[in-house]
Amino acid sequence: MRFELTKEFIDSLCEAIELKDEKATLDLIEKLHAADIAEIYDELDIDEAKFIHLLLEDEKSSDVLVELEDDVREKFLQSMPSMEIAKKIIYGIDSDDAADIIGTFSDEKQQEILTHIDDIVQAGDIVDLLNYDEDSAGGLMAKELVAVNENWNITKSLREMRKQAEELDDVFFVYVTDDDNILKGTLSLKKLLLLSESINIKTACNKEVISVNVETPSEEVANIMDKYDLVALPVIDSIGRLVGRITIDDVVDVIREEAGKDYQMMSGISEDIESTDNVLVQTRARMPWLIIAMFGGILSSRVIYQFTGELSFLPQMAMFIPMITGMGGNVGIQSSAIIIQGLANNSLGIESPFKKLIKEFLIALVNGSILSTIILVFNLLTSDSYIITIAVSIALFSVILFATLFGTFVPLILDRFKIDPALATGPFITTVDDISGVFIYLAICKLLLGVLG
Amino acid sequence: MRFELTKEFIDSLCEAIELKDEKATLDLIEKLHAADIAEIYDELDIDEAKFIHLLLEDEKSSDVLVELEDDVREKFLQSMPSMEIAKKIIYGIDSDDAADIIGTFSDEKQQEILTHIDDIVQAGDIVDLLNYDEDSAGGLMAKELVAVNENWNITKSLREMRKQAEELDDVFFVYVTDDDNILKGTLSLKKLLLLSESINIKTACNKEVISVNVETPSEEVANIMDKYDLVALPVIDSIGRLVGRITIDDVVDVIREEAGKDYQMMSGISEDIESTDNVLVQTRARMPWLIIAMFGGILSSRVIYQFTGELSFLPQMAMFIPMITGMGGNVGIQSSAIIIQGLANNSLGIESPFKKLIKEFLIALVNGSILSTIILVFNLLTSDSYIITIAVSIALFSVILFATLFGTFVPLILDRFKIDPALATGPFITTVDDISGVFIYLAICKLLLGVLG
Repeated sequence: MRFELTKEFIDSLCEAIELKDEKATLDLIEKLHAADIAEIYDELDIDEAKFIHLLLEDEKSSDVLVELEDDVREKFLQSMPSMEIAKKIIYGIDSDDAADIIGTFSDEKQQEILTHIDDIVQAGDIVDLLNYDEDSAGGLMAKELVAVNENWNITKSLREMRKQAEELDDVFFVYVTDDDNILKGTLSLKKLLLLSESINIKTACNKEVISVNVETPSEEVANIMDKYDLVALPVIDSIGRLVGRITIDDVVDVIREEAGKDYQMMSGISEDIESTDNVLVQTRARMPWLIIAMFGGILSSRVIYQFTGELSFLPQMAMFIPMITGMGGNVGIQSSAIIIQGLANNSLGIESPFKKLIKEFLIALVNGSILSTIILVFNLLTSDSYIITIAVSIALFSVILFATLFGTFVPLILDRFKIDPALATGPFITTVDDISGVFIYLAICKLLLGVLG
Repeated sequence: MRFELTKEFIDSLCEAIELKDEKATLDLIEKLHAADIAEIYDELDIDEAKFIHLLLEDEKSSDVLVELEDDVREKFLQSMPSMEIAKKIIYGIDSDDAADIIGTFSDEKQQEILTHIDDIVQAGDIVDLLNYDEDSAGGLMAKELVAVNENWNITKSLREMRKQAEELDDVFFVYVTDDDNILKGTLSLKKLLLLSESINIKTACNKEVISVNVETPSEEVANIMDKYDLVALPVIDSIGRLVGRITIDDVVDVIREEAGKDYQMMSGISEDIESTDNVLVQTRARMPWLIIAMFGGILSSRVIYQFTGELSFLPQMAMFIPMITGMGGNVGIQSSAIIIQGLANNSLGIESPFKKLIKEFLIALVNGSILSTIILVFNLLTSDSYIITIAVSIALFSVILFATLFGTFVPLILDRFKIDPALATGPFITTVDDISGVFIYLAICKLLLGVLG
């Protein structure tokens, strides 16, 4: 039942498209899931994809558009008149997907599309959703849900539910509200099926309901759904009224995106790119941090320049520059990564930042002692310069201390000031550790040269 | 309804525990979700946690154990007799959780616990699950599910369902099988509620069912559930018989773990640790890559040693060592990260590895040209050594080319040989790029000194 995209498949599809053979094309894609067709579009040029798209049934073609990557979808829709977007695409899809699609257009075009939506309830839902920050519960939720009044009994609820649920894709929970639409509880469909029909909803429902406010940030929504193993989560406004529900599939996307973002930050990539993006897009995403790192390199070179005198006297000093900068970078990345992951997963516990720094200091002492002892023994056996032998060990120890504390401290501070702590990874940390590392190392060499030389 | 763990809460809880005040302790935790209580255990020492645990009802206490981190749970259970584990903990929890818990014990203890389980069906399910690789669909799935025969009608199915579903937590789908238990389709509970009661299941069910084999790797399971927005996924054996089902909450854990693992690999951390782990655990997780990186540093120092003659003649050569190694590391990490994320998300598309290398080569040409031109202009304006000015630009260009291709090539090769490509990130890439970077740079300096000097 599952489809695997192969080069052969794309080749025969392209052949059918080139021949304008509608039947052969449809035969190839008709049975595929919308997500698979969206994946196929990625491999085609825009005209080929459009040829396929016109062959799909209305509902399937909207589903495919929902599944497309943002950039592909934009290309797709930019030439389409507002009326067609409203009648053919927005019609029949869930309010959250509709808002996501409309949200990518200019304000003017949004207005145009909205006026063409016949279903006033749907249009109203979309307008409501467009007002929320896309990184909040309001931006994630859909307005479509099944709600029953706490004073109804099971029979009446089932009847009402049948009415409300007809147009919904997946219903797993029924939400229970009072006369003012205040959320009071939830009821799983399973319970609805199992209970005797005369029981009152108020007694049957689960009142310990976990909900979020429309303004809860999406990262927190993801953490809550993950922690409590939820499949759907009701969203309430500031006075407790039920306004929407978030389903787990949207949150899986949030989790993947967040994880991907942190990973890219650490790799020094400034935009969300994939290996299939073209050379220009990829260069633009990689260049900013490389330029920053290069200026960091220039700063390092100025630091080393100050020690040219010592270097010409003892050129072997240069030998350990890569080790010192490399170790500083590695240690700094380790420390910052642990803090950043802890912040992202909300797993830092209740330890105070001060206690964390103390603990990192201890770790740095242990790591620094072990590693500088190893290199001390190695250099005693192999090096002919006592000054370098001593300087390397002291510098390595100091650099490990500095890089550990700096790597712990910076993300904590950034987080305190509500800046994404993941900024403090990758090229930033390694560049700062490079500059401070060479300075510490060469300054110690110079000092020892002055004392012992 | 949501609980936030604070230092004040832990303090008052610890006070109640110290006074052995059972009522005050229960008052504090009774209403909390099992996941919250599990989080609290993380902040307590083992005796405090045990005091709380004995106060919980049987079902709640099993739920808390399921939610605990593996290491905390192990501490908790190691002193408990097999009989108690079987009767108090395993009893009443889902087969997948039961198998996860039992799987952490020695074979001998597993046998002991299994013999104490009264419910022979549950014991059988657990034995079945223990046989699967924990990173496969078989290791993720639970045996508990609701299945109906394709030849039944809705009324009979509802009746059967009521019987089967009673002991299940969440039921969202009913699986449809034939007389040989071969999976034929699925039916959502919503559809069950909406359909007329006399309809035959065969006609009502969705036959385009997406399923996985017991041996499908968990990463692939996660990708499938994410791509098709599934809440539950049936698992079949090699001849198509329905053997279990995977729910989205378990897959969210897989996605988080995979993302966390890649992130930790990139940060050069060899075990799954958190900032709350103690100094010893953290040191053990950080030390391996640091030692490898240090030996990389020693290799770099040997490379530089070969150029001591040139360095004593022109000590300014040392100035740009950190820039060259730093840029090599950054470029290499960028390239490897894009490939590794593409492999993890299954988004590399159908481009062949060869085409990817060609594209990366183009990106490297563009990046290398831009950056080496910038540094050329800068050095022309500020440096007094033409040799260094030219050498830095040529070396930077070459290092960017090398690091880009190496960072792309290695994860692709590792993946081809079924080794986790994420190994090719972090300290490994930066260390290799450091060594090759200093060699390229100093060799070019030496060459130019020979020609121009």
